[in-house]
Amino acid sequence: MNAGFIMKFDLQGKFILSGDATSFKKDLEQFIANFNKTLAKKDKDQKATIKAFKIQKNTLSLTIVSDGNFRPHNALLQIKNVLSKELGKKHHVGVRDITIQQYTIEFELEKPPLKDTNIPFAKLKFKGKQATMVLKDVDEEFLRRNYIDRMINLVKEKVENQYYEGKAEFWKLIWESKAKKPVWSKDPTEEMVKRDWLRQGPTKGKWFYRPQITAIFRAMEQIAIKEVLEPLGFQEIIESHIVPFDVWLKTGHLEGMPGEFYYVAEPATRDVEQWQKFIDLTKITKEIPFEELEKNLSTPTAGICYAQCPVIYWSFKGKTISESSLPIFIYDKTANSCRYESGGRHGIERVDEFHRLEPVYIGTREQLLKLRDKLLDCYKHVFNDILDLEWRMAWVTPWYMKQAGKIGDTDVQDTGTIDFEAYMPYRGDRKKSEWLEFQNLSILGDKYIKSFNIKAQKSELWSGCSGIGLERWTTAFLAQKGLDPKNWPSGFKEYLKELPKGITFL
Amino acid sequence: MNAGFIMKFDLQGKFILSGDATSFKKDLEQFIANFNKTLAKKDKDQKATIKAFKIQKNTLSLTIVSDGNFRPHNALLQIKNVLSKELGKKHHVGVRDITIQQYTIEFELEKPPLKDTNIPFAKLKFKGKQATMVLKDVDEEFLRRNYIDRMINLVKEKVENQYYEGKAEFWKLIWESKAKKPVWSKDPTEEMVKRDWLRQGPTKGKWFYRPQITAIFRAMEQIAIKEVLEPLGFQEIIESHIVPFDVWLKTGHLEGMPGEFYYVAEPATRDVEQWQKFIDLTKITKEIPFEELEKNLSTPTAGICYAQCPVIYWSFKGKTISESSLPIFIYDKTANSCRYESGGRHGIERVDEFHRLEPVYIGTREQLLKLRDKLLDCYKHVFNDILDLEWRMAWVTPWYMKQAGKIGDTDVQDTGTIDFEAYMPYRGDRKKSEWLEFQNLSILGDKYIKSFNIKAQKSELWSGCSGIGLERWTTAFLAQKGLDPKNWPSGFKEYLKELPKGITFL
Repeated sequence: MNAGFIMKFDLQGKFILSGDATSFKKDLEQFIANFNKTLAKKDKDQKATIKAFKIQKNTLSLTIVSDGNFRPHNALLQIKNVLSKELGKKHHVGVRDITIQQYTIEFELEKPPLKDTNIPFAKLKFKGKQATMVLKDVDEEFLRRNYIDRMINLVKEKVENQYYEGKAEFWKLIWESKAKKPVWSKDPTEEMVKRDWLRQGPTKGKWFYRPQITAIFRAMEQIAIKEVLEPLGFQEIIESHIVPFDVWLKTGHLEGMPGEFYYVAEPATRDVEQWQKFIDLTKITKEIPFEELEKNLSTPTAGICYAQCPVIYWSFKGKTISESSLPIFIYDKTANSCRYESGGRHGIERVDEFHRLEPVYIGTREQLLKLRDKLLDCYKHVFNDILDLEWRMAWVTPWYMKQAGKIGDTDVQDTGTIDFEAYMPYRGDRKKSEWLEFQNLSILGDKYIKSFNIKAQKSELWSGCSGIGLERWTTAFLAQKGLDPKNWPSGFKEYLKELPKGITFL
Repeated sequence: MNAGFIMKFDLQGKFILSGDATSFKKDLEQFIANFNKTLAKKDKDQKATIKAFKIQKNTLSLTIVSDGNFRPHNALLQIKNVLSKELGKKHHVGVRDITIQQYTIEFELEKPPLKDTNIPFAKLKFKGKQATMVLKDVDEEFLRRNYIDRMINLVKEKVENQYYEGKAEFWKLIWESKAKKPVWSKDPTEEMVKRDWLRQGPTKGKWFYRPQITAIFRAMEQIAIKEVLEPLGFQEIIESHIVPFDVWLKTGHLEGMPGEFYYVAEPATRDVEQWQKFIDLTKITKEIPFEELEKNLSTPTAGICYAQCPVIYWSFKGKTISESSLPIFIYDKTANSCRYESGGRHGIERVDEFHRLEPVYIGTREQLLKLRDKLLDCYKHVFNDILDLEWRMAWVTPWYMKQAGKIGDTDVQDTGTIDFEAYMPYRGDRKKSEWLEFQNLSILGDKYIKSFNIKAQKSELWSGCSGIGLERWTTAFLAQKGLDPKNWPSGFKEYLKELPKGITFL
């Protein structure tokens, strides 16, 4: 919580004791008076008080208020501990249960909400910038789990986001190439489909790449390896393309884009007996018995790779890296990525399944800023001298940085993301049409380093990554240079001497 | 159905008419007499008869028997058509509904069942080799869908399989190298974990391969490409690693091993509003709200690649290949494969996720038999001269051929699978221990060609495939040659000049 924020708490709670308290009412009154004194003695900011209480048979009802940093629900848990000890010793009575009947929390927002705002577990009311959150019938487990503070944060975040919605993303040009005359202005995917270089499917947003386009992808991959990754000392690793939820909980992806994952469901069992009915029904009907299938599957606990960096960070989880290994420059090119796109799919440039090389770098701030300069030099060399593209670079603010609110507003940044965009002639005028983001480069500070508890022998660590998408590089190149190798720049032709003959259909 | 099989059918069916039939009872009797005559006139083998019938108000009950190839349920559907026409014309009465109250089918098995045998939709009784299948309350849709014949086949298949269970698989040695003195007898995975070349996870049976082992994988991949695939003219393609059920229905995988797939569930929607509660709960609790997740997921209709060839066959589905493109030699090395192993996982040699190059070949019988010889020569060169392995080859019968019963029993075969096995010193004595299957090679005849309706301009097509697993090649090699490059054969060192330095942890 920001210390400057005005917050008010009003908690009505109840202890159920294991015996009637009428006989030691006085003791309880004394206990509460003492507890209030203890609370008062604490730090000035911790202005919590037991404002009222009532004893009825085996029930002790309390009203605790606070307008400081000490939360009444934490006070309630403390009271439980002390009370259990004292009553147990003296009166052989314990605390059976603890509930909050009502918990009202008032806090101030930076700006008033722009629309209806709700969260789970509480009712919300707003009066200008003043938010009131009312919880009812909350149990002890709920209090212990620190949900309350996250609920307050969630309200603030939701209201703040209302001010960003519909606004243009931050975008600041860094560099642009000169305009180049494109060879053609057709949509490369459509033309490749006509030539049998490609076939859509077998599921939505996926492609089957035949030999010609595959050879182009592999040339792009070799360019990335030979002109960027190997010269800078990147070592290849191979990661799993199945990502468990706990990894995405740490990176924030799971709460960020749950509607964009391809989820993975394991069989509940491999036992053939359990699957027998499914097998029999499939054999008889030659259709899928979905009801049987559902019985035999576990609920997903993982998804298919969305970006490659989370599992790379996971591989360092809890580790201490030797100083001599810094900076760590590694990349994965094996995990295929899937994103559920629903609308918005287009050609091979906006797909549900794509193929990327993802370099990840971990090192000191200085090491990473130096690497960024070198990476930019290498990329410029590739896009200017080898692919001869019309392209530009811009600072942008990616999703995982938006809420931090600190970055993306200055020209030169330590942390942040640079997008690389290519002009796509088939989309129309270069000034008016949308360019294709075909590459990015991020330095993320210590965000993921902290999430995964990664340490170095001595240094403070930062990290970052840079996604090199084969579909994007290829489609940017082909959109500008066409499908005929005779129009391709000589630098590229060194990496692809000849197109394979492919397969001819009638 | 085998013509020689004795089968008896007894069907008790019922037509519900749209009006009372009492007034034209005579017409109905005449109709049935005529229909019996028509049945009698047919081929001798089609001995079907309407044995009895009863008319009660708007119900016509029939008993149809047959001991020939003409099925009473097909007779029933024919009667419906003719009856509808005649009654409609003459009496303005239609057939509302058609049901089978009881359908008894007797047929002979090759051998009596060895244990309790059941299938869906029917009760089974056995008396020696005599099987009796009784269906009750079957509707028209069921009859039309040709389930009956598939049910008879399923019973036969189940009983036949009972005789195979527990029996050793067919295995016939073709060739073996001479014994070679292994460098060590340790389990390579365990040693690599100790050296930080590998890390298990992040989910079951998956691995994170750090730079050293990745470099070895890539050397193996280059050997496969440069010594086998490119010299024989294989072209690379890139396939999706998401396989829809309809592809696995055609290959038989879905009924073959449904308990071994990793299933893929798409979001029911990408709409953030629909996911809001999931997002809010995740943010507040920092745990997964599985109930909300399940609400927002679709039932799987696809799985992750199990083997690469099915999607390659799909890419040719319904196509006619130009004669000039034959034989087609292509391979995929991009789709990562997943198999749910539950038990039996071991090191990097028995895993849930693996990386393979899968060459697929489509051509005439002669073209493929010639290719097989060439592939065998190339593989021998790799395993003898480059990797210097102790290994052997054997004819085996894979799952998809077992039920055909025709193959796997002869020394030299047109179709069938050859397994390549390597001695694993850490498993003990070379004569007694189990060797590792590290490669295979199949020619499958026209099985998949027919399933996917693939045609050539003129030729009859066959197909086959050969899985080259990086985990398997690597683990066979390291188990025999150890982790120290100084003990590696010079042929391999030409493909991997130096191990990368990797990452050092404290």
